[in-house]
Amino acid sequence: MQVLDDAGRRLLFTEARTHKHFTPAPVADSVLRELYDLMKFPPTSANCSPARLIFLRSNEAKERLRPALSSGNLEKTMSAPVTAIIASDLAFYEQLPKLFPQADARAWFTGNDAMIQTTSFRNSSLQGAYFLLAARAVGLDTGPMSGFDNAKVDAAFFPHGKVKSNFLCNLGYGSGEKLYPRNPRLSFEEVCTIL
Amino acid sequence: MQVLDDAGRRLLFTEARTHKHFTPAPVADSVLRELYDLMKFPPTSANCSPARLIFLRSNEAKERLRPALSSGNLEKTMSAPVTAIIASDLAFYEQLPKLFPQADARAWFTGNDAMIQTTSFRNSSLQGAYFLLAARAVGLDTGPMSGFDNAKVDAAFFPHGKVKSNFLCNLGYGSGEKLYPRNPRLSFEEVCTIL
Repeated sequence: MQVLDDAGRRLLFTEARTHKHFTPAPVADSVLRELYDLMKFPPTSANCSPARLIFLRSNEAKERLRPALSSGNLEKTMSAPVTAIIASDLAFYEQLPKLFPQADARAWFTGNDAMIQTTSFRNSSLQGAYFLLAARAVGLDTGPMSGFDNAKVDAAFFPHGKVKSNFLCNLGYGSGEKLYPRNPRLSFEEVCTIL
Repeated sequence: MQVLDDAGRRLLFTEARTHKHFTPAPVADSVLRELYDLMKFPPTSANCSPARLIFLRSNEAKERLRPALSSGNLEKTMSAPVTAIIASDLAFYEQLPKLFPQADARAWFTGNDAMIQTTSFRNSSLQGAYFLLAARAVGLDTGPMSGFDNAKVDAAFFPHGKVKSNFLCNLGYGSGEKLYPRNPRLSFEEVCTIL
């Protein structure tokens, strides 16, 4: 049986922190590709893979995001080397004949808006978490946030209306400045029951 | 800069598979605690940590789950060493004075049902993904599924109505039997844009 070694546990789980301040070092295209080539593999329901990503790196792209940011997230986001929009394609099920050839999975969704919405939000959130841990795996630090105006982001970046923003994440190489002390976590007994 | 080594990438991302069939080896309490002690660390919004877990291991507990399972998920779930219910506590914000002492974050949620629902679903899904990768990190194989009757699970396991099931996940040590060939993933160009 294989398990993750201590260095891997520290990097992805136990010692990684959310960062607000990054060094000026740029994030290369090759690193963003390496990140995607990890995050694409863990499971989604019927391999539906609804997540769509926009990496905002240019000043022009960041300025399009600015009006959607909450005041508390503004400065750290405008100064981050990259800000990713983690979004979800509500037309994800059109890809199912390719992504899940075992069954006619597209038919499970066609015309079922409630199931489309629930599956899109759950699975793009799962993929958002895979994104965060994959970013750490390739040496990036992350600063995810949901404090922004989703409708403004969607109007600015997804005007066709089929793709909806889920959350944002700053990316770069953390400077380690002004990290909060780590907040407490709930105990096993508070969260888990074995029956 | 630290990155995850190749063995860690294979274990968590590139070579891990969803399993339907497990060996009879039991899953020890200590392994479930080790899993939780990894999954609790990656980020949630304002550290809100809404996920709640029930690990169903006894025959009696599995029988309580049976009526909620879809036919395609029945046999593999009843025979798995453990089935976890990944759920979310809609009263998560009552814990925020402890979990996020930096601000009066409880007040952001009190009386705001839409924000409670969205935050609960997004963040319990993120934590569900952390659960899946943490399970792999401690040597378990996973079989997640959303094909079940959430209302029946909630009535059977969360009768007080404050906790809602999100998805289920079988756990154990995969036998490797009857694995599907891995389905294709979308390419970087299909999913990602750099602006």
